[in-house]
Amino acid sequence: MSKGFLLVISGPSGSGKGTVCKHILERNEKLVFSVSATTRAPRRGEEDGVNYFFVDEESFKEMVENDEFLEYANVHGNFYGTPKKFVLEQIEKGEIVILEIDVQGALQVKESYPEAVFVFLLPPSMSELKNRIKKRGTESQEDIDLRFKNAFEELKFVDEYDYIVINDEVPEAVKKIETIIGAEKLKVKRLRNIIDSILD
Amino acid sequence: MSKGFLLVISGPSGSGKGTVCKHILERNEKLVFSVSATTRAPRRGEEDGVNYFFVDEESFKEMVENDEFLEYANVHGNFYGTPKKFVLEQIEKGEIVILEIDVQGALQVKESYPEAVFVFLLPPSMSELKNRIKKRGTESQEDIDLRFKNAFEELKFVDEYDYIVINDEVPEAVKKIETIIGAEKLKVKRLRNIIDSILD
Repeated sequence: MSKGFLLVISGPSGSGKGTVCKHILERNEKLVFSVSATTRAPRRGEEDGVNYFFVDEESFKEMVENDEFLEYANVHGNFYGTPKKFVLEQIEKGEIVILEIDVQGALQVKESYPEAVFVFLLPPSMSELKNRIKKRGTESQEDIDLRFKNAFEELKFVDEYDYIVINDEVPEAVKKIETIIGAEKLKVKRLRNIIDSILD
Repeated sequence: MSKGFLLVISGPSGSGKGTVCKHILERNEKLVFSVSATTRAPRRGEEDGVNYFFVDEESFKEMVENDEFLEYANVHGNFYGTPKKFVLEQIEKGEIVILEIDVQGALQVKESYPEAVFVFLLPPSMSELKNRIKKRGTESQEDIDLRFKNAFEELKFVDEYDYIVINDEVPEAVKKIETIIGAEKLKVKRLRNIIDSILD
């Protein structure tokens, strides 16, 4: 009955958006995860249409030219993008689509599809953010410093978002996002046609 | 930490806004109920500043002239109004203020204070609404017909509101309003200064 919508869960590196989204999807079977298109090769166990839509570079560039992405980026020589068609079809069916994405990507989505709901995930403090970036342990000091600097810079884009969720404890952050979903479903713009059914 | 806000709970006669608000306030000690000013005489047990601010007609009219009301109305010869000062002081302190009010009043609040959050409470169907109006048993057939006609007319103002809550079962409606409150507390505009505390 209620219209679907796109929920963009975003935040700087170290905000924990990956973990939070994983828990949300585990707990909420009805949510749909947005599937990205990419030009990189499938890894072992990755399925086309499930983990990614795997496309070659020529097709990807054609999709870009045809304005078929909500956002896209080139990461270390591979292209990644969010196909508009998949997301809009799900929303049309009344589904709630979750898109986990970095701040730069979220800002692109805000341009191309401002009707989406934007959640900014934040670490409880900048020192905690630094700890989290460090704990990954896979990066050089230079990379860590760069990620931290970028995270700091990205905070200033918070005003482009609708909601702030502090990710101190993951279960609490997950509950808050579920609360946001619950309230967004009650928005007049998504329930407008309920009036007609009441009048019947 | 989070800024307070005004939550307007409104709906046509028979939507059950009185019952729903009573339950919300019983379950949520921290919410503040907006206290109206009125020119009618106190009834037994009513306390000034608790149930109403009791004022004489001259003072009330002076308050109207000084633009001290979020909304006001004349009901059967008595004036009722929502004093701006009380509401804004509570919000300044970070409180969430609940205002239960009819549709005409809510539309006035929307004019004078559009930052408020507006919830439209609805009966599950128009026939149920008619039943509820009848069940009061205190009104003539003419009054019932008029209330029903007004309720029907008021539905068209739903687009002025932010959220729709169908009041089928009271506990469910109460939970939905609590969800709305939970999500509204996470709005960027109310948490903006949290960014500063994270940066510290």
